[in-house]
Amino acid sequence: MGYQAYLQLLDTDLTGGLLAGKEIISSGMTQELTRAGRAIEKALAGNDVCLVSSGDPGIYGMAGVILELLAKEGDSKIPLEIVPGVTAASSCASLLGAPLMNDFAVISLSDLLTDAKVIEKRIRSACQGDFVIVFYNPKSKKRTKPLEKAREILLRYRSPQTPVGVVRNARRADEEVILVPLKEMLMVKQIDMGATVIVGNSKTFTKGSYMITPRGYERKQNKNTKLQIPNQFQ
Amino acid sequence: MGYQAYLQLLDTDLTGGLLAGKEIISSGMTQELTRAGRAIEKALAGNDVCLVSSGDPGIYGMAGVILELLAKEGDSKIPLEIVPGVTAASSCASLLGAPLMNDFAVISLSDLLTDAKVIEKRIRSACQGDFVIVFYNPKSKKRTKPLEKAREILLRYRSPQTPVGVVRNARRADEEVILVPLKEMLMVKQIDMGATVIVGNSKTFTKGSYMITPRGYERKQNKNTKLQIPNQFQ
Repeated sequence: MGYQAYLQLLDTDLTGGLLAGKEIISSGMTQELTRAGRAIEKALAGNDVCLVSSGDPGIYGMAGVILELLAKEGDSKIPLEIVPGVTAASSCASLLGAPLMNDFAVISLSDLLTDAKVIEKRIRSACQGDFVIVFYNPKSKKRTKPLEKAREILLRYRSPQTPVGVVRNARRADEEVILVPLKEMLMVKQIDMGATVIVGNSKTFTKGSYMITPRGYERKQNKNTKLQIPNQFQ
Repeated sequence: MGYQAYLQLLDTDLTGGLLAGKEIISSGMTQELTRAGRAIEKALAGNDVCLVSSGDPGIYGMAGVILELLAKEGDSKIPLEIVPGVTAASSCASLLGAPLMNDFAVISLSDLLTDAKVIEKRIRSACQGDFVIVFYNPKSKKRTKPLEKAREILLRYRSPQTPVGVVRNARRADEEVILVPLKEMLMVKQIDMGATVIVGNSKTFTKGSYMITPRGYERKQNKNTKLQIPNQFQ
């Protein structure tokens, strides 16, 4: 069972009939509690249930919804396995270059579930710590203020030239990858619920179409190893 | 090519001869620059090169090493694809329950590449933002102080009862999963270079063997949907 759009992604020539022979239960967006409740009911009735989540189910996904419901239930005996996936931060970073080579913070801009003031506090703290910041759920048609506020806060701490990478529908047919300086972030029309936004730290730079956050190899002193950097790179 | 231990993981019955027919080049730990340099040399010589990294190559992995070297080179024409993977935060979280259901910060405790004072600043900022914190490279035989310092900082901001999850060698034969309160974190002998440590935020709780960070569904007001929570969960 799962959000209908994700189930469609499983039912393609590429996946070769993963849904064949199974009872399919789909539902719409924002129905997470209902969907999780039905999954638990079906499992308690003796079925094997696969609850589909996009990316990694443990990062803002269905794993927590299921576990929170089971925790309320008190003493559930349902055998459960959470299968990790490739989260949006990783898939989007791989299309931008290597923006996550140093410490980073992941923040959801969805103020449906988290108070806007808490989100702002998180953004400020992430800036003060000079983290690369990955924004999930950056914007929707109705919800535009959190992203505007985020940029306002970011510009108090970071250069307006800080690289910002936007990836929409990563690894799907209509994937889009955009790189802009922070000052132009709000002009990127591709930022919607299908996008992930990665804001560089104070050392992130661009080279061609790549966004790169240094790991710190220039600091490294390894007394035991002779670094053999090919001549053309010295 | 890759770190020798990771190449061994590819050469098992389960992987069915992924290495067959290929030139294998392996090297030891902390040889990242050398390995990346050799990969680039081989590619410039006309070979297809697969550079193996564990977890996700873009999170403290080989993607950044390659791109930083190419950036120095100036004008490289090497076609490159970065394939994202399941990073330790995701795989470890999936074994602990659902600790990453709210905003989180990822911090490497390796002070080989990042100054210890910067690491401490990051931990403080992550605490002030009430992020769940995922520590990569938490400790090695020679490097124990960063983890001790981390706990010291954490206890200034978080309850000593804050859940801490430790996963060592996730999804491998000798996998270990441990859950302790923050005050006991340093007693967990399984914390080494193969482990990931996840420290809960102020709302993270445990239920049985699960570590759960609430997403915020108790706040959610969805006027369009009647939430159908099964009776036994109300």
